[in-house]
Amino acid sequence: MVDRRIRQELASTKKEKPAPDQLQFGKEFTDHMFIMDYTPNEGWHDARIVPYQNISIDPSAMVFHYGQSVFEGLKAYLSPEGEAQLFRPDINLKRINNSNERMCIPKIDEEFALDAMKELVALEKDWIPEAEGTSLYIRPFIISTEPFLGVAPSHNYKFIVILSPVGAYYKEGINPVKIAVENKYVRAVTGGTGEAKTGGNYASSLKAQEEANKNGYAQVLWLDGVEKEYIEEVGSMNVFFKINGEIVTPELNGSILEGVTRSTAIRLLEHWNYPVSERRVSMQEVYQAHQDGQLEEAFGTGTAAVVSPIGQLSWGDQHMVINEGQTGEVAKALYDNVTGIQYGTVEDPFGWITKVNETSVVEQ
Amino acid sequence: MVDRRIRQELASTKKEKPAPDQLQFGKEFTDHMFIMDYTPNEGWHDARIVPYQNISIDPSAMVFHYGQSVFEGLKAYLSPEGEAQLFRPDINLKRINNSNERMCIPKIDEEFALDAMKELVALEKDWIPEAEGTSLYIRPFIISTEPFLGVAPSHNYKFIVILSPVGAYYKEGINPVKIAVENKYVRAVTGGTGEAKTGGNYASSLKAQEEANKNGYAQVLWLDGVEKEYIEEVGSMNVFFKINGEIVTPELNGSILEGVTRSTAIRLLEHWNYPVSERRVSMQEVYQAHQDGQLEEAFGTGTAAVVSPIGQLSWGDQHMVINEGQTGEVAKALYDNVTGIQYGTVEDPFGWITKVNETSVVEQ
Ligand SMILES: Cc1ncc(COP(=O)(O)O)c(C=O)c1O
Ligand SMILES: Cc1ncc(COP(=O)(O)O)c(C=O)c1O
Repeated sequence: MVDRRIRQELASTKKEKPAPDQLQFGKEFTDHMFIMDYTPNEGWHDARIVPYQNISIDPSAMVFHYGQSVFEGLKAYLSPEGEAQLFRPDINLKRINNSNERMCIPKIDEEFALDAMKELVALEKDWIPEAEGTSLYIRPFIISTEPFLGVAPSHNYKFIVILSPVGAYYKEGINPVKIAVENKYVRAVTGGTGEAKTGGNYASSLKAQEEANKNGYAQVLWLDGVEKEYIEEVGSMNVFFKINGEIVTPELNGSILEGVTRSTAIRLLEHWNYPVSERRVSMQEVYQAHQDGQLEEAFGTGTAAVVSPIGQLSWGDQHMVINEGQTGEVAKALYDNVTGIQYGTVEDPFGWITKVNETSVVEQ
Repeated sequence: MVDRRIRQELASTKKEKPAPDQLQFGKEFTDHMFIMDYTPNEGWHDARIVPYQNISIDPSAMVFHYGQSVFEGLKAYLSPEGEAQLFRPDINLKRINNSNERMCIPKIDEEFALDAMKELVALEKDWIPEAEGTSLYIRPFIISTEPFLGVAPSHNYKFIVILSPVGAYYKEGINPVKIAVENKYVRAVTGGTGEAKTGGNYASSLKAQEEANKNGYAQVLWLDGVEKEYIEEVGSMNVFFKINGEIVTPELNGSILEGVTRSTAIRLLEHWNYPVSERRVSMQEVYQAHQDGQLEEAFGTGTAAVVSPIGQLSWGDQHMVINEGQTGEVAKALYDNVTGIQYGTVEDPFGWITKVNETSVVEQ
């Protein structure tokens, strides 16, 4: 049985909130955070909301050495009525448990974690910025804390949720980006950890990202690790192509993260009667489509940007300009509708919105 | 220019040392640790030896989320004259910088880091256990500490060295182990981070290790991620086979860690005029050699065990018993000579030993 009480220890002083036009991503954090601990005897326990603070941790804690960790990323949005709401948080919590499974981390109770996130967001509601496109980023994560240098699953963990107010991703309208196809580095491979949201996948991506940036590209397009031929993801987003009217996205093959925005996009596109196909997509196919004038759109999907159109895709010496470097209609429709549902300005026919019930806050 | 001063703040109380027969690996730590910090402006700075203590770190620190970290592992041994000595520490420090390169972490000054490790070990010399086969494990590691959730190389790091007294790996003589060839999970792939000693590689190995243990195996033998055919490593050791008189080990291909013990073994074997070959080795070749009665030995090499003979290698339904499940003569010779050099009981013709000069300690 899960002990569902959440102890609250409120901050005695509040931080100053960032000015609306100064919002960055992931640099400032709210006044409180949620923590619970795991031990083999007690399971997940001592759930608490406490002032945002440093954690004190043994230098031999496993997370520092063997990277046993998982995380999630989602947002709280303010509706026109001024209500705080989450977008498909159940999918993020299911995904953290899938990641836990792969990384040998004990599962969390998804319902309880959702309650905890809601309670924390409700408490920090004043931190959700109001300007268009802004939101409160929610970062749940789990780290292995056992002070032991053996290579084995940790016996101790912390599940923590921190919140960070973020500015609009697109300040001056959607901006298509230049992407380089990555031929040298590999993000993930069949049998590896690509479908888990775990630190190592991101650590391994830094070098490629850095080299791409140096060469003037925003992100890299990752190819599969085995044949270096099939398209996997773009930066830390899933990727979609519109080829001759059909919308295709790489199928989930074990090395691709199953994005919430990806599944949202597929559902909406089907709802709109677009032909959508999840299948293997080779770089050769995309290149050929471009040669034939049939590569109509390409875009990434993820929580941060929702949709990020690819204006140019460079594959070695081939520099493919897509849709004249402009945002395509499918990308635009997805962006407008997904953000509309998230912010409560467009109807939510799929029940994707979870309201943060402010009365659920129990004062200490 | 590097500021080479190391500030010392000594522990006011000392911990009790573990009883010689109670020594475990990596569970107890000495009284002090070494730390230095990195910022873009100051570089690596504020080198200090302080009492072993928890570190206080922002929950948004990058290491918790994106796994940007590297580590090393080596040991201090006590010679018959009671001197503390290190085995090829320069190779570990070169390797941490190679890992840093791959993980976008700023390099450390190898000479200075060696001085720091020596100073720390000298200070903690009483912690080096005396019984045969025991030693003081040295764990240098670097973690990314910037409080920022963007996926990008951190601007801040900590380099830390902690020490842990460890018992003999083989308490009752060398013990050949049962190994399962891993057909499902992949540790590393060409273009990935396999040749770096970074947390994510170990996190991704936990699941395979756990399943192998459940099935009665000590470790897994990793195959390459592309063709699932070529042998890479065994557990967290490099691997050697003796096939019809020739000693073969997988060549360094970018996904294999370049082990200090591997290079030591190769050098010694060449010195002894064994034919040694670094090349691709397929599972099929090993299996065929076993069928033909030519698979004479198989063993892993690493700092922890030095040599770990493989008594049985299971590949799907094929259970190959090697050298009748006994330790082979090559494994034995390597074990005896490497440990002999490490502990100063066998001549060191290659200059592999670095004495820890006790007079280098500067009291505060
Ligand atoms: C590797 C990777 N792929 C895809 C995504 C997109 O997933 P989501 O739509 O759930 O944000 C993310 C970001 O979360 C990611 O890190
Ligand atoms: C993945 C991996 N391979 C090989 C080794 C062996 O390296 P070394 O001989 O330097 O200990 C280690 C251990 O350090 C390791 O972690």
